[in-house]
Amino acid sequence: MKLHGYFRSSAAYRVRIALNLKGLRAEHLSHHLRKGEQCAPAYLAINPQGLVPTLEDDTGTVITQSLAIIEWLEETHPEPALLPKDPLRRAKVRAFALAVACEIHPVQNLKVLTRLREFGVPEDKVTGWAGWVNREGLAACEKLIAKESGPFCFGARPSMADLCLVPQLANARRFGVDVNAYPRLLEAEAAAKAMKAFADAAPDKQPDAE
Amino acid sequence: MKLHGYFRSSAAYRVRIALNLKGLRAEHLSHHLRKGEQCAPAYLAINPQGLVPTLEDDTGTVITQSLAIIEWLEETHPEPALLPKDPLRRAKVRAFALAVACEIHPVQNLKVLTRLREFGVPEDKVTGWAGWVNREGLAACEKLIAKESGPFCFGARPSMADLCLVPQLANARRFGVDVNAYPRLLEAEAAAKAMKAFADAAPDKQPDAE
Repeated sequence: MKLHGYFRSSAAYRVRIALNLKGLRAEHLSHHLRKGEQCAPAYLAINPQGLVPTLEDDTGTVITQSLAIIEWLEETHPEPALLPKDPLRRAKVRAFALAVACEIHPVQNLKVLTRLREFGVPEDKVTGWAGWVNREGLAACEKLIAKESGPFCFGARPSMADLCLVPQLANARRFGVDVNAYPRLLEAEAAAKAMKAFADAAPDKQPDAE
Repeated sequence: MKLHGYFRSSAAYRVRIALNLKGLRAEHLSHHLRKGEQCAPAYLAINPQGLVPTLEDDTGTVITQSLAIIEWLEETHPEPALLPKDPLRRAKVRAFALAVACEIHPVQNLKVLTRLREFGVPEDKVTGWAGWVNREGLAACEKLIAKESGPFCFGARPSMADLCLVPQLANARRFGVDVNAYPRLLEAEAAAKAMKAFADAAPDKQPDAE
């Protein structure tokens, strides 16, 4: 398998963790987002959204969107499971993952911040925008798992929720958000980061890290 | 079941279609988004994101996030299926749904447009922002299904992809986007809208429509 990604992309980071947890190897192909390499015609031919990650399996078949890739990995390589067995518990885990992947990440990604600058929004307000999105989103995430047993987001094992949380907390810190306001999220992050699968997927461990 | 929604919310619209396709009834509870009713303490207690939709089952258990609700409906009421059986085909459908639910919808929703206005962005540029997000996102969606057989997004039956597409096209038109640029998407929309399950879920058919 080949994973098209970028060290700092939090969506690619989610998939790196999933691959590591499942014990799967992939060749990592880097596309430098700030240089616009994700918009090169050859890449757009396999991912018309011009986003990372994209997974190519051994037959050349392409899957885009990090959560679609993770669901596919879960269905084709079920162990260790990244979703609980019970449908309602699965829904809770997915809702948390989507709260990050829909409401936080895309509203503070490079494309949106670039557009804000193009609209004449001054730099301090652009950073303020990213901080607002992260603070509001993470505060809701904290409440979503307030009554869940730890140490991970949903119990004793990592799930799709933790795969989304850990990269997003890294983003939040880059934007200057005080993440100490979210103790339950930090508990889950600490448990996750103690695992080699999470540690090896970190941006600063990737060959394309700057 | 109770569905907390709003007639114009495209995320709630997705779930209304899913319920209709599965032949499931739900009591519809409206929260007026422009009046901020989704931020009332009683609602935040069940959905800390302050977003619609939220599904409450008969035991009072709550599921948030439209795609998590739809996956739960699919797992608990499998027929008619909203996802194909083959894992790779499921991934393709999910990737399309996520391309709408992550990259288009949250970047042009009421909350983001309100924030743009608070940042001093003039009204014509706010509408321009929403148009940009829809045009760029829908153009990618058009390519994602360019080689798929119709009339629906993925073949002869509606899937989770169509549930996301139809509400998003309604949004795009509201923002003045020329949707004729996406003939394959319009083919899928026409097939979907010919079904009673889609027609009955339309915003203007809801009791809270204005």
